[in-house]
Amino acid sequence: MLGTIRKEVGIMNNGRVERILAKMREQEMPQMIISDPVAIYYLTGHWILPGERMLALILNVNGNHHMMINKLFPQQGNLGVDITYYDDIEEPVSIMTQFLEADKTIGIDKTWPSHFLIKLQELGCGTKFVNGSPIVDLVRQIKDEEEKEKLRISSKINDDVMDELIPYVVKGLTEKELDAVVRELYAKHGCEGVSFDPITAYNKNAADPHHVTDDSKGKRGDCVILDIGGFKDYYASDMTRTVFLGEVSERAKEVYEVCKEAQLRGIAAAKPGNKMKDVDLACRDYITEKGFGEYFTHRTGHSCGLEDHEWGDVSSVNEAIIQPGQCFSIEPGIYLYDEGIGVRIEDLVLVTEDGCEVLNKYTKDLIVVPYED
Amino acid sequence: MLGTIRKEVGIMNNGRVERILAKMREQEMPQMIISDPVAIYYLTGHWILPGERMLALILNVNGNHHMMINKLFPQQGNLGVDITYYDDIEEPVSIMTQFLEADKTIGIDKTWPSHFLIKLQELGCGTKFVNGSPIVDLVRQIKDEEEKEKLRISSKINDDVMDELIPYVVKGLTEKELDAVVRELYAKHGCEGVSFDPITAYNKNAADPHHVTDDSKGKRGDCVILDIGGFKDYYASDMTRTVFLGEVSERAKEVYEVCKEAQLRGIAAAKPGNKMKDVDLACRDYITEKGFGEYFTHRTGHSCGLEDHEWGDVSSVNEAIIQPGQCFSIEPGIYLYDEGIGVRIEDLVLVTEDGCEVLNKYTKDLIVVPYED
Repeated sequence: MLGTIRKEVGIMNNGRVERILAKMREQEMPQMIISDPVAIYYLTGHWILPGERMLALILNVNGNHHMMINKLFPQQGNLGVDITYYDDIEEPVSIMTQFLEADKTIGIDKTWPSHFLIKLQELGCGTKFVNGSPIVDLVRQIKDEEEKEKLRISSKINDDVMDELIPYVVKGLTEKELDAVVRELYAKHGCEGVSFDPITAYNKNAADPHHVTDDSKGKRGDCVILDIGGFKDYYASDMTRTVFLGEVSERAKEVYEVCKEAQLRGIAAAKPGNKMKDVDLACRDYITEKGFGEYFTHRTGHSCGLEDHEWGDVSSVNEAIIQPGQCFSIEPGIYLYDEGIGVRIEDLVLVTEDGCEVLNKYTKDLIVVPYED
Repeated sequence: MLGTIRKEVGIMNNGRVERILAKMREQEMPQMIISDPVAIYYLTGHWILPGERMLALILNVNGNHHMMINKLFPQQGNLGVDITYYDDIEEPVSIMTQFLEADKTIGIDKTWPSHFLIKLQELGCGTKFVNGSPIVDLVRQIKDEEEKEKLRISSKINDDVMDELIPYVVKGLTEKELDAVVRELYAKHGCEGVSFDPITAYNKNAADPHHVTDDSKGKRGDCVILDIGGFKDYYASDMTRTVFLGEVSERAKEVYEVCKEAQLRGIAAAKPGNKMKDVDLACRDYITEKGFGEYFTHRTGHSCGLEDHEWGDVSSVNEAIIQPGQCFSIEPGIYLYDEGIGVRIEDLVLVTEDGCEVLNKYTKDLIVVPYED
């Protein structure tokens, strides 16, 4: 049985679809399946989170767009596109083929679970399959005015949360307790939630970028990495500060100042015309010059927007030219695990016509909080 | 540059790999890419959560298994398989092709993001691509003794949490406040967290199976659906009870008793030899007979284990024969939205040789808690 078709009239959001269609035409991609709920929100203004059930927005350069949604997720209001609702006992890919041109290339969402693609291929629908997400990601990468304002508001809240969080560090909380405080602070500020699991890591844990928050407590002299962010009105914030408990060793101070200078150099390199890798190398070359190159073990940053991690790394191999409207993190780190020193400093920046606007205003001066064991 | 290869010796878990290889041979699938972190935990005992970065366990019927992990997630101890660690600036699918037989069929994990599969196809690696997950899912569906014990422990905690939660319902909390209590109770009982976002829904919200928890409060006469579960030692629990505030109308009482009898009929049908659909129909036919068929708008249940929702629905179209060792939920519901009545009753069951063990012991008698507006 086919799903029911409910007719909708209206327009999709803000010309964003048009920008995607233009790129599809450029790249000779006649049709594309978008399945990522975030991309679908970006285009329709509706959040639909169907879990493992298929969700698809089919865009066609001829204008015949269509959407497929499981019946368990009925939508109120106007998405600006015709919708087919299907049932749990129907096979949605077979239904979807009627909205695709079987004898043409199909763009596929990068995160579409493979079993749907395999089914589509088994049905003989599509002559060639290409990753369509770079097109969507490139459009999403350039934030429009509405998005910029939301990003500013979200990061302003993040500054406030950091300011309210640091006084808790003096209280001798465990990492998990600090984590809970972070979540409460975002809730208090009207955020939908954290934009990623906060990092609240002491000592050696701070020197392990993938440490899992545990019951560790800090002790005098420890560094504490606070890497936090929330979602406000669906837009992410993301900032890191590293503070010290009671005192700071000369060695840790040196590491901190190198990291801070590297981060400032990254910010200076974040401007139109430069490449993404120039931002990474501005940080990395300075850290290397100061002798800590091998302890900066990750990329310098990532794009940010409706997701904390969006497409477009700030890495040493990203040759893409920076453009106005991009938003990304600049977060060099130096991790001396054996010495129990981990320092990372991170801001989000929004690229302007001739440089960038740093969205986080929270101080980067070295902070030593009062602390007794 | 190729990633470094670190040699590991040892065995993967509990003969589980052998059971998968046997099914691969039966189905003439010479090799398979497993990418789901849960399946990888099931087979190796290691939780590796690399986010968008590629993670793959390649199984080959010839015994040449191999694993690929991003360098940011170094593993301690023995996974029982050779590992290639790759870097963020390397393209992992190209590296992976050396561990695959290009001229043969490749089984693909159902949830592998499509862009990896498209890349593999572009590289000309593999002659045919099939969804390999049913093999893994079929093996995972039959719980071994270690797993059964963990499921019992997890559901025992769930009974305790329900028992401690219901007294909070009398206090006039909002849905979000109740949600927070649920999370605290699992933490108190030593769980890793909730196994899904709890449902703590009043009145009409209870009659909307996909309602999002909000600031609603209950009022006298309301139903409250409490659909909750946690992870203990990585195994999920999942139970629903519906209670009433202060008083219950005759209509709601009728709905409750129909739902309860339907659920008991579902439990009676959960035995080896029956089909999965028999469990669904045992519930559905009774509800239909009582005149509420159109208000039971979802499948009767789902398999459960390392994930709250595992492969294998209890739905009206699942022809699979029930086997000892399966664990699934039985959760009929009746939703009269316009009347503000929603009732669902759910237990997990573990199929035995001749029936099933109901993992939840919490009473299904109709509960009316003391309540004043």
